[in-house]
Amino acid sequence: MRYSSTSIEAAIEALSSLPTIGRKSAQRLALHLLRQPRERVEALAHALLDMKDQVILCGQCFNLTEQDPCTICSSPKRDKSVVCVVEEPSDLLAIERTNEYFGLYHVLHGSLNPLDGIGPDELKIRELLPRLNDSVREVILAMNPNTEGEVTTQYLMRIMKSLDVKVSRIARGIPIGSDLELADDATISRALQGRIQL
Amino acid sequence: MRYSSTSIEAAIEALSSLPTIGRKSAQRLALHLLRQPRERVEALAHALLDMKDQVILCGQCFNLTEQDPCTICSSPKRDKSVVCVVEEPSDLLAIERTNEYFGLYHVLHGSLNPLDGIGPDELKIRELLPRLNDSVREVILAMNPNTEGEVTTQYLMRIMKSLDVKVSRIARGIPIGSDLELADDATISRALQGRIQL
Repeated sequence: MRYSSTSIEAAIEALSSLPTIGRKSAQRLALHLLRQPRERVEALAHALLDMKDQVILCGQCFNLTEQDPCTICSSPKRDKSVVCVVEEPSDLLAIERTNEYFGLYHVLHGSLNPLDGIGPDELKIRELLPRLNDSVREVILAMNPNTEGEVTTQYLMRIMKSLDVKVSRIARGIPIGSDLELADDATISRALQGRIQL
Repeated sequence: MRYSSTSIEAAIEALSSLPTIGRKSAQRLALHLLRQPRERVEALAHALLDMKDQVILCGQCFNLTEQDPCTICSSPKRDKSVVCVVEEPSDLLAIERTNEYFGLYHVLHGSLNPLDGIGPDELKIRELLPRLNDSVREVILAMNPNTEGEVTTQYLMRIMKSLDVKVSRIARGIPIGSDLELADDATISRALQGRIQL
């Protein structure tokens, strides 16, 4: 069933093209916006366009930024001898949140997925190697713990083999605050493999 | 943790002001939009503003429409002797979807909720009575099955008591396709009270 108003339908259509927003949610959002004063809808529309117009990728690490190089790459406080490779800007943010990592980043903007036609050229992989000059002593691979992340990790390890740089990957295991009983088999298996001698 | 880009933060802020969208979802949506071509973001922004500019309330039934009176009120095929009162435009849509109701509607745009300061004057209740002229023989109350809907139903029944019009309400009971076992006590109790002699 569709609204007789074509502009409501168009808005619902546009909203439901967003990830995780189905037709029902889109409908609810559209009706909510109709109840708001015009300024609120304007503010949302402009915020989205402004973001699109102002945000660029850092020419060094490919993080989202409004200035190039980004605040992390240009900070004198960051340790330029370590580069942490992540899939997405949101992963970078998750690591920054810990306040425990002070090196640089390299954002791939995805992970290798041959089935979906995502090869090395679709990611910022080619751009990683020239960064690994003499001043970089360690590359930390922080891909997501899934098949695509695993494939990407293996690929990066292979192409960095010949370089004189230490390559590490973040640990997998039982998440802190979780329950061993609740962890899936693959996680427990990884936790066992990655056991640390005390 | 926040993005160093203020325009990303502004977009996330605007998106998370929408109902059911928290900071995490807003972040995901913003990053998704950043990956889209500018035209896609423009299309979304314009669809929202166009909707806001073009949609008005029908002067008779207060449904959302781009023409006044709306297509339902102005249709010669609709039975003008029955008026179904609903809380929201989405409820009207849900009833239209059945293809079994051919009367008119009256959209209240909410339900009575004294705790939130929603009294009769905040809803389109005052506008209902003048519509109940001689040609209307039945008013169907189709409020939501919750406290506010119940209060609204009771209020409407009271103010329509003196009018020469049949007032009915939609049935409550076990939903079709559901399981008696899965229904909550209140629903089962209503289903028993509303039993129909065979």
